[in-house]
Amino acid sequence: MNNKPLILVTNDDGIFAPGIKALVEVARQLGDVIVVAPDSPQSAKGHALTLTDPLRLKPVKQFEGIECYACSGTPVDCVKIAKDFISKKRPIDLCVSGVNHGSNASINIIYSGTVSAAMEASLEGIPSLAFSLLDFSFDANFEPAKPYMKEIIAKTLEKGLGDCKLLNINFPKSDTFKGVKVCRQANARWVENYVEAEDPRGEKYYWLTGEFINSDKGTDTDLWALENGYISIVPSQHDLTHHTALPHLKHFE
Amino acid sequence: MNNKPLILVTNDDGIFAPGIKALVEVARQLGDVIVVAPDSPQSAKGHALTLTDPLRLKPVKQFEGIECYACSGTPVDCVKIAKDFISKKRPIDLCVSGVNHGSNASINIIYSGTVSAAMEASLEGIPSLAFSLLDFSFDANFEPAKPYMKEIIAKTLEKGLGDCKLLNINFPKSDTFKGVKVCRQANARWVENYVEAEDPRGEKYYWLTGEFINSDKGTDTDLWALENGYISIVPSQHDLTHHTALPHLKHFE
Repeated sequence: MNNKPLILVTNDDGIFAPGIKALVEVARQLGDVIVVAPDSPQSAKGHALTLTDPLRLKPVKQFEGIECYACSGTPVDCVKIAKDFISKKRPIDLCVSGVNHGSNASINIIYSGTVSAAMEASLEGIPSLAFSLLDFSFDANFEPAKPYMKEIIAKTLEKGLGDCKLLNINFPKSDTFKGVKVCRQANARWVENYVEAEDPRGEKYYWLTGEFINSDKGTDTDLWALENGYISIVPSQHDLTHHTALPHLKHFE
Repeated sequence: MNNKPLILVTNDDGIFAPGIKALVEVARQLGDVIVVAPDSPQSAKGHALTLTDPLRLKPVKQFEGIECYACSGTPVDCVKIAKDFISKKRPIDLCVSGVNHGSNASINIIYSGTVSAAMEASLEGIPSLAFSLLDFSFDANFEPAKPYMKEIIAKTLEKGLGDCKLLNINFPKSDTFKGVKVCRQANARWVENYVEAEDPRGEKYYWLTGEFINSDKGTDTDLWALENGYISIVPSQHDLTHHTALPHLKHFE
């Protein structure tokens, strides 16, 4: 009889990204691991899912001794298909997503495939953790984050997350961390524009570029924590109701 | 000098869907309209955006006398590019998205391209309305909803939305409505599985199918309103912080 917890690992940078390798290396120390991750990079896919096309799911030998599948869909598709196939045999105790190459703090949470995958698992009541490192580079150094990831996963397996089923965890780009802050999502945004250019056929195209602007001066935010050398943990959820606005909109009734 | 408000119209079913035609017909009675919508169906794209590819934006003559662009990207891309190009010339007073062919009530909000487009505009402080009709068919009848859409748009232009910048509005499939309810997002979910089959080359594929399950018995929810013949309006927002969980997770620090 196996008493180890079952941990589903996924990401949005694709199954061959170094970030998921780091996460698998930590997760396998704490439980049985199954990996279902996109077969190609799926950054900024948000909560997109595939309805009008079939999905492909291929067993791959990416991590020695670990059951591992590459899926043709989005991060959310990966979790949905994993829930269907894996949960029938054995319940998933925890879903971990990432480690994302780049920040998913503040408003980036709504664009993020990494967090959306974890949120999809959390919708089923599965405690879920999204991990991101503030370093977009392919050869980002995940080593300093590993002991903290292990402790966060261990605590989640041990104590659960209570009513909250989803933590959005970001690591500053650093060799050392001052500690961990549990905080709220900062109210920041992207100021963007499109670069116009012509393709070799003379047709115009437009390419997104932008700058991240934080006008939220709170010291209880994820951006504050990250800018000050802390790991940020934002307890997150999927109810988008603006509850405090409810009584002020009765004139629409 | 033109004192009419400027209304940006978009959707996720694509610029050639009947739902956006209904919305344009209503919006043009209340302001100057510009349409920027996907050149193909983009359902269930969530908050996906295009980072690693260029976008195309083609002027099309879809609606007589209205400036109209078909965009190769997602619904969120449409709003981002519209904000960049249009806002530089003249501020957008209102963004309306839809009318979606099918429900975006309850948890569907997080998968919905229609609502994500409106949310993207709301991030800039633009009052934004997402409209959906609970009828997936291409020839859904949008006529009964039009007078209500007109009233909701007119009230929003007149009074604004206060702190809240986004309303998620769903219409039951009906010829008549009992009225409008301002309500919270019901806590319901999809129970899904994948149908396995073989393609003509003998390769396996998987296709999503599912059933929508509502275990939220509240009478203050969008699903209750819709099931009882009312139009539902859920004031919505983009802060995913689980605020009440914050004090209970200090052991992670």
